Amino acid sequence: MKLDDLYSELTIRTGAKLVLLVLDGLGDVATPDQGGRTPLEAAQTPNLDRLARESALGRMIPVAPGITPGSGPGHLALFGYDPVEYQVGRGVIEALGLGVDLQPGDVCARANFATLDANGIVTDRRAGRIPTEVCERLCARLQERIHQLEDTRVIIRPGKEHRFVVVFRGPGLEGPLTDADPNREGLPIPEAAPRDPANPRQQKMARLIRAFYQAALPVLAGEKPANGFLMRGIAHQPHIPLFQDRYQLRAAALAVYPMYKGLAQLVGMTKLEGPQNVREQFERYLAEYDNFDFFFIHHKATDKAGEDGNFEAKKRAIEEVDAALPVLLQKKPDVLAITGDHSTPCAMRGHSWHPQPVLLHSRYSGTDGAQRFTEAEANRGSLGIFEARFLIRLMQANARMFDKFGA
Amino acid sequence: MKLDDLYSELTIRTGAKLVLLVLDGLGDVATPDQGGRTPLEAAQTPNLDRLARESALGRMIPVAPGITPGSGPGHLALFGYDPVEYQVGRGVIEALGLGVDLQPGDVCARANFATLDANGIVTDRRAGRIPTEVCERLCARLQERIHQLEDTRVIIRPGKEHRFVVVFRGPGLEGPLTDADPNREGLPIPEAAPRDPANPRQQKMARLIRAFYQAALPVLAGEKPANGFLMRGIAHQPHIPLFQDRYQLRAAALAVYPMYKGLAQLVGMTKLEGPQNVREQFERYLAEYDNFDFFFIHHKATDKAGEDGNFEAKKRAIEEVDAALPVLLQKKPDVLAITGDHSTPCAMRGHSWHPQPVLLHSRYSGTDGAQRFTEAEANRGSLGIFEARFLIRLMQANARMFDKFGA
Repeated sequence: MKLDDLYSELTIRTGAKLVLLVLDGLGDVATPDQGGRTPLEAAQTPNLDRLARESALGRMIPVAPGITPGSGPGHLALFGYDPVEYQVGRGVIEALGLGVDLQPGDVCARANFATLDANGIVTDRRAGRIPTEVCERLCARLQERIHQLEDTRVIIRPGKEHRFVVVFRGPGLEGPLTDADPNREGLPIPEAAPRDPANPRQQKMARLIRAFYQAALPVLAGEKPANGFLMRGIAHQPHIPLFQDRYQLRAAALAVYPMYKGLAQLVGMTKLEGPQNVREQFERYLAEYDNFDFFFIHHKATDKAGEDGNFEAKKRAIEEVDAALPVLLQKKPDVLAITGDHSTPCAMRGHSWHPQPVLLHSRYSGTDGAQRFTEAEANRGSLGIFEARFLIRLMQANARMFDKFGA
Repeated sequence: MKLDDLYSELTIRTGAKLVLLVLDGLGDVATPDQGGRTPLEAAQTPNLDRLARESALGRMIPVAPGITPGSGPGHLALFGYDPVEYQVGRGVIEALGLGVDLQPGDVCARANFATLDANGIVTDRRAGRIPTEVCERLCARLQERIHQLEDTRVIIRPGKEHRFVVVFRGPGLEGPLTDADPNREGLPIPEAAPRDPANPRQQKMARLIRAFYQAALPVLAGEKPANGFLMRGIAHQPHIPLFQDRYQLRAAALAVYPMYKGLAQLVGMTKLEGPQNVREQFERYLAEYDNFDFFFIHHKATDKAGEDGNFEAKKRAIEEVDAALPVLLQKKPDVLAITGDHSTPCAMRGHSWHPQPVLLHSRYSGTDGAQRFTEAEANRGSLGIFEARFLIRLMQANARMFDKFGA
């Protein structure tokens, strides 16, 4: 029996309210240059401290030991899906990040404008990093000329600088294809080919990519330096069991950035638009309290500060959440989990594999004698170190959503 | 997707230097008769203490909860191979331990001299534990008479007392076979039979074992008490993916004892011969620093002391490593892991299942506020308790050898 089936079989609806508060990239490592402290240790967090004293703590492995996740796998794990089993292509993530309202079956590609010489050889894979305005103008022109290929709608959406995405919406499409990208300069653009050559849906998709190149390259012919483009991560939106079916929870997403809204939408959560900061997110939670059972609240600033290697900014991003926390606690949920989707240590200026700390609070969570919510306190917590995909199961258990297994 | 495939897909070569320092049987348990301390706690280890303050700590389950590994599974796990999936027959381990230079396809059997009565009934399974000199003489005589059976070379190598190994090197051979050993006295020697009766390679191997008995028993006919022998663990060297292919690391082994050299060779590491103690091993590491990416350094004395139940000797064996550590740190590797292949608690006088402590040091390991490298400090470490086979993945992560997974 698969464990997920067991969980499903034991699940009971209880009407409990569950909140998953994600401080993106929350975890960090203590390094000598910051006096051996992490941002969580350095931050003034009276509200989190009080909560930590009444909670169970632990740490979570985002995917598997040593693996650094992107936002996609990091969040899928938090939503309870095995991120190795449910892989989301980069094209899909990029499209979500640009706010494209993806539909089941859509195939997405991330694309770069590039420079080609007279023989079609790639001389600059990023077209000199053209300004975003140029990218927007070129994408608009491409979209104007190319709406449809065979029976398939084509949606072109500009990103930052040389980046854009192309979404193919039509019947019988599937990825993944190999990249239409030589991965270095001095070579022509290879054709995107089916990863599984026998798959007719991938064959059709490869044909559409060829047709897209045939239609698009002439449109760009006079452009300098962006007279070509590369396409990567060509894949369809994977089939992911819906959150509500899987957990018997009506879920809402309170995220500011499109990518996190998109990831929540991927599993069928309802996007609640409007709030622009964590205090507004908490206020919206209060307003929507009766309408949902599960609230995913996403705070981006911690990750951004970590990516910048900005210790002080990461500390402040944590303090911002702490200061707003009393708003959330005006209607204390039955189960509250506070964690990250991964660590983004300032010392690494990027995501990492280090297990993120997690705080789990409910009437039944127990307490661990912790005085604060920090990585070091979490090391000693009763939750131990576990795979992030099990957090939601612990939340459900704390919501008394599981029947006893066996007599 | 298999996790190992994901790791492979994400692996990048970085030129980083990684060192795995194994204090064999390092872990221990605190017992009242030693004042509730472990050898690591009792030892004077100023260098390890300093390192511990700058490292991440944890404990590792060698195979699975409660399972006590031999040296084979213990080391395979440290080398990143699932020891339940990659099982190495006892014959192979014994042959490696006796320094036989095994080749792919070799089938090995561990053998005991035994006493048979006139009817071929086993009356002493260990031939009265004959002296090693007698064993050596008998093996030499057998080897003189039996070089070849059919198209297969036969290599006979004496061990301690009544023990020896037989290696069959020829085309189309495979194990495992059932044992040619009644497992108790009073019965005749059973024939070794294919575990999979339909496997023609195992059938050939069973025929060769029969032929070996037919040739060897007459040679021993006049001997007392060693007029017979039993053969067990008849198996071939398993197919194990090569370390270098799997991790993109050129690996060297610095071990004094043949078994550990052999285990390293089994996964394709280069043996560096010569050093006879840990200081010499560290010096050789310095000399070979540029030639390899990964160094496996094996120290045996901790395990030996544990097997003898000699707390003081185990403490001294740890202190010997500590005293030599500054030599290693003259060229500090990018990633340094110090651990055991399992615990060998003095109170148990043998290997055990208790998770061994591990220290992981790199620029990105972070620190756990530990003051010393001990079992109790390791319990509070940020690495938590994890399966030993993931250590190498954490080492690779700390060497920044993994691309981000997903966007």
